[in-house]
Amino acid sequence: MSDLDLDSILAFTIKLALEAGEKIKAGQQNRFASESTSEKEKVNSVDLVTEVDKAVEKFIVEKISEAYPEHKFIGEESYEGQQITDEPTWIGIPIDGTTNFVHGFPMVCTSIGLAVKGVPVVGVIYNPFLDQLYSAAKGRGAYLNLKQKLPITGQAKPLLSLGQALIAVEYGSQRSPPALPRKVAAFEKLTAHTDVGGKMAHALRSLGSAAINIALVASGGLDMYWEVGCWPWDVTAGICILHEAGGAAFAGKASSLSGNVNAELLAGRKYLLIRGIAPTADETTLQIQKRFAKEFYDCTEDFDA
Amino acid sequence: MSDLDLDSILAFTIKLALEAGEKIKAGQQNRFASESTSEKEKVNSVDLVTEVDKAVEKFIVEKISEAYPEHKFIGEESYEGQQITDEPTWIGIPIDGTTNFVHGFPMVCTSIGLAVKGVPVVGVIYNPFLDQLYSAAKGRGAYLNLKQKLPITGQAKPLLSLGQALIAVEYGSQRSPPALPRKVAAFEKLTAHTDVGGKMAHALRSLGSAAINIALVASGGLDMYWEVGCWPWDVTAGICILHEAGGAAFAGKASSLSGNVNAELLAGRKYLLIRGIAPTADETTLQIQKRFAKEFYDCTEDFDA
Repeated sequence: MSDLDLDSILAFTIKLALEAGEKIKAGQQNRFASESTSEKEKVNSVDLVTEVDKAVEKFIVEKISEAYPEHKFIGEESYEGQQITDEPTWIGIPIDGTTNFVHGFPMVCTSIGLAVKGVPVVGVIYNPFLDQLYSAAKGRGAYLNLKQKLPITGQAKPLLSLGQALIAVEYGSQRSPPALPRKVAAFEKLTAHTDVGGKMAHALRSLGSAAINIALVASGGLDMYWEVGCWPWDVTAGICILHEAGGAAFAGKASSLSGNVNAELLAGRKYLLIRGIAPTADETTLQIQKRFAKEFYDCTEDFDA
Repeated sequence: MSDLDLDSILAFTIKLALEAGEKIKAGQQNRFASESTSEKEKVNSVDLVTEVDKAVEKFIVEKISEAYPEHKFIGEESYEGQQITDEPTWIGIPIDGTTNFVHGFPMVCTSIGLAVKGVPVVGVIYNPFLDQLYSAAKGRGAYLNLKQKLPITGQAKPLLSLGQALIAVEYGSQRSPPALPRKVAAFEKLTAHTDVGGKMAHALRSLGSAAINIALVASGGLDMYWEVGCWPWDVTAGICILHEAGGAAFAGKASSLSGNVNAELLAGRKYLLIRGIAPTADETTLQIQKRFAKEFYDCTEDFDA
C-alpha cells in the first residue's frame, strides 16, 4: 500500500463519481421521456434501468482500468463470486438505491471504494439528484461536498442511550418468513415504549440506499444503521468515509464486535454502523460504540442462525 | 377568494420560505457550535431547538402580518386550538422534521400554506439543507426549484398495484399499545410477501418530515404517504402542491374517501396522500386513487376506533 498515492486516487475517484452521477441523471431523464411517449414506442422500464446500471458500471470499470490497470474490480453488475483479496481492489456500485431510481425518489447514488488488504482506503459516494458528495481517504478525513468536514458537528457528539438514537433500517427484499417478521419485530422493539420493554429510539429512518445511509451515519445525522443482506459494493466506500469521520463498523452478530474492518466484514452481508461518539472519562469512543452494538443486537434475532 | 392575487402571494411565500430556511440553517450551525464548546458554556440542546423554532415562527408571522394584516395564522408554536374557518388562513410550521433537525439529519423544511374556505391555494416547502424548494398555487401547477414542473415524469405514470408502490410511513411519537403495534402490523402487511397475505409493496420509506414526504408524493418519487397523528401545519402547503401535481388527499378511514379537501380533512390528523396516476380506458385518475386508498385502508386497523 506504500506505493499508492491516496491523494491522487481520491481526486480520481471524486471525478469518476461526479461523471457517473451525470450519466445516472441523464439515464433517468431518458427513461422518463421514453415512458411518456406513446404506448407503441414505450420501452420496458426495467430494461432501461438495467441498461443505465450496466452502462455506468462499464464506464466506471473502464476508467479504473485505464488509470490503475494492475488493480482488481468487484462490482454489482459484473459480480461472479470474486473474493476480496489483499490486492488493491475497487469495490463499487453504479446505482445504489435502484428502487428509488425506478420511482424517481431522489435517494440514489453511485458508490466507489478502494480496499487494500480488505481495508477501505478511499471512498466516494455521490448523489447526483441532490448534488451531495461524500468523500474520504485513509488519514485525510471525510468531507461533504469537499468543504464540510465530517461529522458536521465538528467534534463527535455524545450518545447517552439507544433511546436517543436516530437509526436507519431497511425492509429489504426478503419478504417471507422468517426474515421479514424478525426484522419487523426488531423495528418494534427498537421503537416501542420502555414500559412495554422497548428501547424507545428517537426514530427510525428508511432511505432505501445503503451507501447514503452510511454517509449520513458518518455525517452524524444518523446515529446508527443496521443492515442485513446488502453487499460489499454497497458498503465499502461508506465504511472508509465512516471511519475517517470517527465511526465504527461491526459485523452481523453480537459475538463479533471487534470493530475491525477486513475482507470478512466487507463480504459478510450484515452490518451495524455507528457514528463517532464523544468519549467519556470512563469509556473510549470504541468502547461506547461496542456497548451500543451489543445492546442493539440484544434487540434483534440472530440473523446468522 | 376572488380578491386574492395568488401569483403575488406565491412570490411572497417563496421569498418567506427561503428566508426562514436561512434562519433554520444558521440556527443549526449556532447550536452545533455551542454544543462543541466546553461543558461549562454548553447550552441545553432542546432549549436551542425550541428557540430556533419559536424565532422562525415569529419571523414568519410578522412578515405575513405586515403583508396581509387581514389574514389569520395557525402555526405549530402559537397554536391555541384555533379552527380553520372560511377566512384566508395561513397554516405553517417553522421547522418540520424537528427530530431530524436535532440530529443533523438533512430532511428538514419550513412549510407555509394559505387556505381559503379550508382549501389550500398556495403552498411552499423549502429544505434549506438540501436546497430543495417545492411550490404551488391553485391553477398554476407545482414546481421543484421553480423550474421543474411536477410530477418530474411529465405526465403521470400508471400505478398497477400496491405491490408496485413506494410508500412513506412514519413511526410517530405514540409508542405504546395500541398505536405502535397497529402501525407496525400495517407496515408488515404492506411489505410481506403475497404468499403470506401481504401486499409486497416495492418498499417503505421513512424520512421523518410529513411535508417532505408529501412533496415527494407530488413529485411522483413516492406513490403514497400514510400518516396518523400530524397536524394541519404539516400538510396544508403539501396538499396544495400535491393537488397541483395531480395527486389526491384522503382522510383517515375507508369510509371517507371523497378526495375532497376541506377544513375537516386538514384538521383531521389522519391522511393518505396518493400521487397523480395515469387514467385508463376504464377509470379516471380519481377513481384509481380511491381504489388504492380503499385497498390501503384494508391493510390497516381503523385508527378512528
